This record gives sequence, structure tokens and C-alpha cells, in this order.
Amino acid sequence: MRGVVMYGPGDVRVEDRADPRIEQPTDAVIRLSATCVCGSDLWAYRGTDSFGWPATMGHEYVGVVEEVGDEVTTVRPGDFVIGSFFASDGTCEICQAGYQSRCIHAEPVGALGTQAEYARIPLADGTLVATPGLPGPDLVPSLLAASDVLGTGWFAAVAAAAGPGKTVAVIGDGAVGLLGVLAARQLGAERIIAMSRHEPRQKLALEFGATDIVTERGDDGVAVIKDLTGGYGAHSVIEAVGTQESMMQAIRSTRAGGHVGYVGVAHGTLPATELFFSGVHLHGGPAPVRRFLPELIQLIGDRQIDPGKVFDLTLPLEQAADAYQAMDQRRAIKALLQP
Amino acid sequence: MRGVVMYGPGDVRVEDRADPRIEQPTDAVIRLSATCVCGSDLWAYRGTDSFGWPATMGHEYVGVVEEVGDEVTTVRPGDFVIGSFFASDGTCEICQAGYQSRCIHAEPVGALGTQAEYARIPLADGTLVATPGLPGPDLVPSLLAASDVLGTGWFAAVAAAAGPGKTVAVIGDGAVGLLGVLAARQLGAERIIAMSRHEPRQKLALEFGATDIVTERGDDGVAVIKDLTGGYGAHSVIEAVGTQESMMQAIRSTRAGGHVGYVGVAHGTLPATELFFSGVHLHGGPAPVRRFLPELIQLIGDRQIDPGKVFDLTLPLEQAADAYQAMDQRRAIKALLQP
Repeated sequence: MRGVVMYGPGDVRVEDRADPRIEQPTDAVIRLSATCVCGSDLWAYRGTDSFGWPATMGHEYVGVVEEVGDEVTTVRPGDFVIGSFFASDGTCEICQAGYQSRCIHAEPVGALGTQAEYARIPLADGTLVATPGLPGPDLVPSLLAASDVLGTGWFAAVAAAAGPGKTVAVIGDGAVGLLGVLAARQLGAERIIAMSRHEPRQKLALEFGATDIVTERGDDGVAVIKDLTGGYGAHSVIEAVGTQESMMQAIRSTRAGGHVGYVGVAHGTLPATELFFSGVHLHGGPAPVRRFLPELIQLIGDRQIDPGKVFDLTLPLEQAADAYQAMDQRRAIKALLQP
Repeated sequence: MRGVVMYGPGDVRVEDRADPRIEQPTDAVIRLSATCVCGSDLWAYRGTDSFGWPATMGHEYVGVVEEVGDEVTTVRPGDFVIGSFFASDGTCEICQAGYQSRCIHAEPVGALGTQAEYARIPLADGTLVATPGLPGPDLVPSLLAASDVLGTGWFAAVAAAAGPGKTVAVIGDGAVGLLGVLAARQLGAERIIAMSRHEPRQKLALEFGATDIVTERGDDGVAVIKDLTGGYGAHSVIEAVGTQESMMQAIRSTRAGGHVGYVGVAHGTLPATELFFSGVHLHGGPAPVRRFLPELIQLIGDRQIDPGKVFDLTLPLEQAADAYQAMDQRRAIKALLQP
């Protein structure tokens, strides 16, 4: 089969890779209907994070089950399925508590590489959710978004305690931040402040439910949030970037007792004394997307939300290198790849 | 009046200070019935934190109102009152949300120095809570504990989401940690693991409701907590020390999706990536003791809890230097001073 391999920063190739097969009785093999490039893939592309090269790429996926192992009972060949970027057993105490991404048997799907024609998904029963029937092609981008960026934005909004009566600020105008706006709206937030200086992203933020756009960043951005909130800071702040600067901006934009939901893969260090005196709640990490999938699939199927709008570039899998470049250069918010 | 002044690390003196008087119409002046030395005072005593010297000391207090300003309506001369280490207006959005220690008009009582015969308490209406009638002398130590260490331990347990069915680990065997044990018990925790290698503190922890004692520290302590919790880590961890090491021990002892409540004045830095992948909830800071005072006064008055047991040394105010030394050398858990 064909699949994406990164040979080093900036060096993305599509080449022949071994067809995946059932290795464990709990595995499924799926044929990808769509996959995509994640903002977190750019950490490697830009050389900020280093992998062992060459690295198979991709951890977002929707597709049709081809084959399942002997112990798989909840999905069967022909099912259209969605899963998250961590495979999870679904049965351990961590999964049962809704933190499937930190399952004690979690396996990173990224290591298997879903930017490809086929993928092996471990722990299929605990990981995959089948849609009710085959979705129309127009729903595929939104279902693909649920696999990571929607689920992650949703988790960020939940972690930030977004809800009725709350003012929510969203730092990061990538797909996750934009879908954090959508999630905050669905969760009933009163006011949603999107921080963005890019016109197409501002527009999408407003479409997803933002009530205010702020273009300032860093300490200036903090000052504007304080101004907009009577000097208190926002009740809820979504951090969807992952740099030390954006994390500090998030903490400083939150009122004492408020909540920061952080889902950008965090880098750098946090000053403990400042964090202490901020008095905020801090929660985040790799989003337990699996927790939210049944609800998100329902909302998408009912056409109540349209998260697939974050895909503003669609390319054949063979042009994956162009997709990475477009996202790196911020010419695209998020690129969908068609195997 | 007589009061404590620190002239530099290790240099504690009791000397004549100006009698406090009403400066603002929202002030009260109280005559201290009892005061004490806080673990956080030791940061300065040991030279870890530097103040402008000389510094008046003390932020814990119970006493009888002597005089109130014209605008004070909720307490009157003769009332026995308890307050917290931050004065708070009680009316701003932060106070209304229960985060009085971060009130937008918060004033640190420590700057006024309650290790003294009298103290001026700003924002008396929002800060002080009167007991129903004058308490018996045997209740005074427990009410004094409510002013900081009990309220702080209670907040830590709430921040750590201690409750029925939960396993709570407590890092720090000072007065705050020990009262975190008591709070976790009151909140219904199923299992409470106190981390201590000091026999008298272990004994008090067990008396306050600990079910297990762990003597290991650092990574060894983390390993024991994991062993005791089926490999998952504790649901709830109270951090009541404030060093970088103890904070990392707390985070590593908590299961993904669990809660760290941290109330030791945090020092150092936190590695953001490790925090991210831990998947824990982190909440803490200067405890909003005022939120809990009515409930704590009730529990103490009903003799359902006896937090005053943390005072294992009682000295006249004039011997404050001995009190600091005893706590610094860990000969005393907490020293009560009698003005």
C-alpha cells in the first residue's frame, strides 16, 4: 500500500509500505476513507520534536473495517468506523473514568501511521466506534474531524469548564482552537473570545460561534481579555498551541478560580510560584477523544455541527508533502488527504 | 503593644510595635486570643524567600473585636472572630465564586503581622466570621487552626476532589498535610495514605483518619503509591510542601484524570510536557479559607473535629523565637503563641 513517511524535518514522502495485517486477536484493519495532517505533526516537520527517522505519520482516521481479529466483538467488516489517536482497552479504571487516551494499555496510533491506504488499529473494541450505517460523503470530513481536532477541542472546552454564563477565551486559531470555539458554543458558553489575526480563521471562528475576535497576543492579549471581562479575566481559557508563551498567556488570561483547558502539546516549563498565585484550575493533556465520540457522531449525523469546515484543503494522499507545506506556511488551516 | 519582627533569616525578635488603629472605615481592630507560626513563615526564616527586613510576622489569628470602622456592619466590639490570611471584600466576582484569597481587593494580613497583641484587619465585613457566642478556651486552638492550616488542608482536599470511593495520598506531614488528612476523612474518602517518616506525625495522621502510612519519598514514594493502587496511582493527591520535588511527586502519584490539590507555596518550575502527558487536574494556590470558615466553625463547635491537636507546642508570645526554632528543627508540628 501507499503511505506517508517523514525522513526528517521538512522531508515528507509517500512510498510503498507493507500492508497492515491482524497481529493481535484484538486488532482491526481498516481501509482509510480519509485521513489528514495534524498541527502536532508540524512539531516534527519543523524539527521542534525529534523522532527516530524515518517515521510513519498520521493518527487521524475514518474508514471501513476490512478484517477483525478473533476477539473483536463490537465492530465487523463493512462497518464505517472512527477512532482516536490512542488505542484504548475500554475496560481499565482509567478508561472507565473517561480518560481513554491514558489507558494503561494505550497504544499511540501515530506509531502505526494512518496517513496511508490501510491501517491496523489495536484494541478495536475499546477504540473504534461504528456509525449507524454508511455516512454520506459530505459527512466524512466532519467525522474525520471528530477523530482528533473536534474531540480535542471538545475536551479542551470541557476541561476549561465552558458552559452557561461563562466567558471563554480561546488561544490558538488552528483547527483545534476553532473547534474549541464550536464546542464552547455547544456547551452553552455566553461569550466566546477567539484570539486570531488571520482573517479566514477569524471568519470561521465567528461561524462556529465566537462573539469577539482579539488580535493582540502575549501580555497585550492578556490585557485585552482583562479589559473585556471587567478586570477579572475569563472564566474559561482554552490553550490550543502548546508553547510556553501561549500557556502563560492562557494562565494570565484566566480569573482566579477559573479553568484553563490545555490541549496543545505543552513545551517548556511553567513557573510554579506564578501558577500557585494564579489560583486557576489547570487540566488538559492528550484528549480522551473516545469519551466524546458517540455524542459527536450523533451531532454530526444530525447535522447540528459541521466541524469538517476546518478542512480548507483537500489533496490526494500522494500529495501529502504539499499538504504539510501548506499547513506549515499557514496557507491551510487543515489538510484532508484522500487515499 | 508587643509583636514579632523578623530581622533576617533566623533572627526573630519580640519588641514594642505601634498599637494598630482604625485606618479605613472598613477596618476592625482585634485583640488576639491566640496566634501561631506557619510553615510558610519558615520559608523566610530559612532564607529561601527574602522579604524586606525587618518584617512584621504572622497571618493566623483569632480574637475579640476591640473597635470597628464606621462602615463595618457584620461584626461588633466583643465578638469573637476568625479570619483568613487574606482580607477580602466579599462582594467582587472572585469572592462570590468562593476564591476570597484572590479577591480583587485582597490585602495580605501577613503584612500587618498578627503575631502580636493586637491587629488591624482590613475589609472586616468580608473577612471576619464571628462565632456564636464566646468559645470555651479548649476550642480556641481548633478555631485558630481554622484561620489557616485547617482551611488550607480543607481546600487542598476539595481541590484534590477527595470524596467517597476515592484514594487520597497526602504529601507533607506538617500541620496542613495532617489537616488535609482530616479533611479528606470528613469529605468521605475511602482510603487516605499519609506520607510521613516521623512517628508523632504518623500517629496524628492515623488519629485524623489516615488508613495507610508510607515512609518512602520521591520516586520511591511514587512507586509505593502505584503499588497500593493497582498500578493506577491515587485518585486525589494533596501537595502540602511546596518544593519542586514534592510537586513532581504529587503529579506522578496521581492517576490520569485524577486531581492534585496543591497548597504548599510552590517553588521552582514544572516541566510542561510531563505535566501534559500526566493528564491530571491541577488546582491550588493560596487557600480561600474564608469560603470554608462557617462550616469549619460549626464542625469545631459541635466537637466533630479537633484540628487544634496540631499544636504540640504552646508558648507565650515573648518566646516566639523559640517557637520558630522548634518548628524549623521539626521538634514541633505547629507552635501556638499566647499574647
